[in-house]
Amino acid sequence: MDRSVKVAIIGAGVSGLKAAETLLSSGTISKDDIVVLEAQDHFGGRIQNSDVSQSKLGIPYALGALWFHDSLVNSVLHELLDSGLLNDEDIYYDDKDGPTYSSEGLLDVSGLKLNRVMEEASQFFELYFKDRCSDASCDEVVKEYVKRHSRFLTIEQQQYIGRLMRYYELWYGVPAEKASGREIIDGHMGRNLLNKKSYCFLLDLLKKKVPDSCIALNQAVKSVTQLSESEKKIELETKTGLKVKADFVIVTVPLSILKLKGSEEFGINWSPPLPRSTQDFINGLDFAALGKVVLEFDNVWWDINEDHFLIIPDEIDSNDRFRADGTPKPFAFPALAVNYSKIYKKGGSLVILTPAPLTNFLELNPDQSWKYFKPVLEKIAVEPIEDPINTITSNWTQNPYIRGSYSVSLAKRGNEDNHKNVLEELRIGNDVIRFAGEHTIVEGAGCVHGAYDSGIREATYVLNAMKS
Amino acid sequence: MDRSVKVAIIGAGVSGLKAAETLLSSGTISKDDIVVLEAQDHFGGRIQNSDVSQSKLGIPYALGALWFHDSLVNSVLHELLDSGLLNDEDIYYDDKDGPTYSSEGLLDVSGLKLNRVMEEASQFFELYFKDRCSDASCDEVVKEYVKRHSRFLTIEQQQYIGRLMRYYELWYGVPAEKASGREIIDGHMGRNLLNKKSYCFLLDLLKKKVPDSCIALNQAVKSVTQLSESEKKIELETKTGLKVKADFVIVTVPLSILKLKGSEEFGINWSPPLPRSTQDFINGLDFAALGKVVLEFDNVWWDINEDHFLIIPDEIDSNDRFRADGTPKPFAFPALAVNYSKIYKKGGSLVILTPAPLTNFLELNPDQSWKYFKPVLEKIAVEPIEDPINTITSNWTQNPYIRGSYSVSLAKRGNEDNHKNVLEELRIGNDVIRFAGEHTIVEGAGCVHGAYDSGIREATYVLNAMKS
Repeated sequence: MDRSVKVAIIGAGVSGLKAAETLLSSGTISKDDIVVLEAQDHFGGRIQNSDVSQSKLGIPYALGALWFHDSLVNSVLHELLDSGLLNDEDIYYDDKDGPTYSSEGLLDVSGLKLNRVMEEASQFFELYFKDRCSDASCDEVVKEYVKRHSRFLTIEQQQYIGRLMRYYELWYGVPAEKASGREIIDGHMGRNLLNKKSYCFLLDLLKKKVPDSCIALNQAVKSVTQLSESEKKIELETKTGLKVKADFVIVTVPLSILKLKGSEEFGINWSPPLPRSTQDFINGLDFAALGKVVLEFDNVWWDINEDHFLIIPDEIDSNDRFRADGTPKPFAFPALAVNYSKIYKKGGSLVILTPAPLTNFLELNPDQSWKYFKPVLEKIAVEPIEDPINTITSNWTQNPYIRGSYSVSLAKRGNEDNHKNVLEELRIGNDVIRFAGEHTIVEGAGCVHGAYDSGIREATYVLNAMKS
Repeated sequence: MDRSVKVAIIGAGVSGLKAAETLLSSGTISKDDIVVLEAQDHFGGRIQNSDVSQSKLGIPYALGALWFHDSLVNSVLHELLDSGLLNDEDIYYDDKDGPTYSSEGLLDVSGLKLNRVMEEASQFFELYFKDRCSDASCDEVVKEYVKRHSRFLTIEQQQYIGRLMRYYELWYGVPAEKASGREIIDGHMGRNLLNKKSYCFLLDLLKKKVPDSCIALNQAVKSVTQLSESEKKIELETKTGLKVKADFVIVTVPLSILKLKGSEEFGINWSPPLPRSTQDFINGLDFAALGKVVLEFDNVWWDINEDHFLIIPDEIDSNDRFRADGTPKPFAFPALAVNYSKIYKKGGSLVILTPAPLTNFLELNPDQSWKYFKPVLEKIAVEPIEDPINTITSNWTQNPYIRGSYSVSLAKRGNEDNHKNVLEELRIGNDVIRFAGEHTIVEGAGCVHGAYDSGIREATYVLNAMKS
């Protein structure tokens, strides 16, 4: 059963499948020359829809990646549209200014000119880091903005701006006290586009080009060993005992797996160990936990015309957001409720985005979802609020092969190389072990199109290296 | 009457007065060592309030500079506040989301998601110029955005985005077909703050530090002659025949004066001629014509709670915006009506910003103002519209010593150095003739604080040069 191939790919998510597809379509590598080792019993990585049977409204909810971000430059989006595989009806700009609520009710963002203050606070990030080498957390930068510019801010603006800026936790997926202020100032290029067709459609397209025989499911790699200089081969061994020898390996496992020690369960043993610079890179990034809670109702008791509802948190110290019994306090975290009822017109349906560590709690205790969200969602009710008829919760933090959502830069102390430079180091010395995935790319980091592009990048590298 | 001084300053606007004040406060130059030659019968340059007697409501309208831009980094603003000379009540953030109107009535900017499209179109500018050396006009870039991304835009978004983006004409003061697309992508740092106390207050502060004896009014300089190498002096001659010899000259006349030939009336004769690079710089920039029309009414017949009303133009080709009789067609230009009634609470008062060439027309024909604006302002009426009881119009384009509002980059053809580099060239060879003013600085270009900072810069240069 042991195999010898030209290229072994670890992980059958978007980047792994795209790498495989790129290699196969080159014409220089046959299907017997590559193998994709996938730890789970299905391909797709962090792209996953809930089963239609899970929904009482017949909606396939994307529990992982959902939007096309950077829509001006998104390679996947433009490719799919250009090829006619995606149509206008399959995409939806859900970017209408939505109402914002706090525990006090509807917040008059426009009247209090809080949108202008948010824009200014975002500009302050740029100013703050202009002549500064060291990093600071998003929370620290916002606090410094309020401190330095308090005379230009009304009392209400001072009260709300920190709570409003925690909205960004729904982007970077970790608490504002941890996220790198330096990293979040890079904005997206273009609006965000909801993928109504869901990314499973992209997976299916890729999968069509990669024969079943190339993909080995339930094969979690536990070691990567570079054999002697003379043999110039890499040997992979999986938990089931399968051994694969390859000339090149493209490693697309999530950053969360790379962060595990080889001695830990689900960790990979590297022999020789990964070089210092690669380890530093892996340690310097963190893995976020953006989660989703889907709530289905008999009726729509909120404003059907809104794209989404933002709920900002109360001002609660980061150490004090959970009760002694471990349950989250209401309004301890920001939440974005996406109004699926407007998009799918199939009944009452909200998809709520949650940041860490709320995600971790709700994914471990999905039955607690409504208890947490009922007082929160009461604020958006325009009809009598109903209990949900169905709840679906993402499970990323509890999946040992995934362990969260995507990579994120934490605020670093002291002088640090930036992400871009450090990425150059994310390879092993002799250039036969390569890395792909959303965590290995700057343009599109954390996104499907970033993972996709990184798959092309590494496949292209391997093809070129094989030529020479 | 001829004088010999260490430093002659041409122009008693903000940059000239700040340069004089900086020199005098250094302690190394006495008041007999400097002279400020001002062409007009008053100091202040492009800072001017209407006489209170001109207003029926007792409001001193700023007809030139009004706002503190870049409020996060505005040196003037921060200095005045730090010294207690400006208080919270003297400043007002008039940046509430205002309603937008077109000839068809109120435009549902939020509902049509046009604000998101405007943000995206602005991001497209960055993308467009990323790998491109040549310039393009703002209008061209917006048209290219619509062309490339039409499949992501609704019919309404495609119809309105070009008209909405002409809003920026109220910033750069020239038609979108002329303004440099490359230059407008630099945003301001921070919100804009309306200076309720007006900039005349700043002028008075500066004037207190510069004795009357230092300022010669009604002395338009007509020639700047560098005398022989041995004498190392510069001789200035004014229209009245006054001759001044100086070791250093700081030239703060508006760019519009620099653009005149020496042979033209109000032009300056340079001997030797300005170097090629300086002339190129002067020719490469243009002088905009942002204007103001003040309308006073017995009653407030618009929504008193709005900070301002934006009126976007109809889609009319730039060659077709005036009738055969020379009068502007209604809705041919964008306009921003600032609701002074909200700020001053003294009755019905609107201050309307106009771009070139509408400004040129209205400043030449102030009696035509209401004829142009009545059909436009009918759109914002929530009570029966009234005729104004008073109209005050700026006069910048008609003032031969000013000739417009401020400098602006026009779209250039072919490869061009950028503004920043070219600015380095804005000096005459031997470093004794210096330039200051809003057109000589990158951070704060076109603004009072830019002019102010450039005055400090050149005074500091002269002080250092005198030491060595």
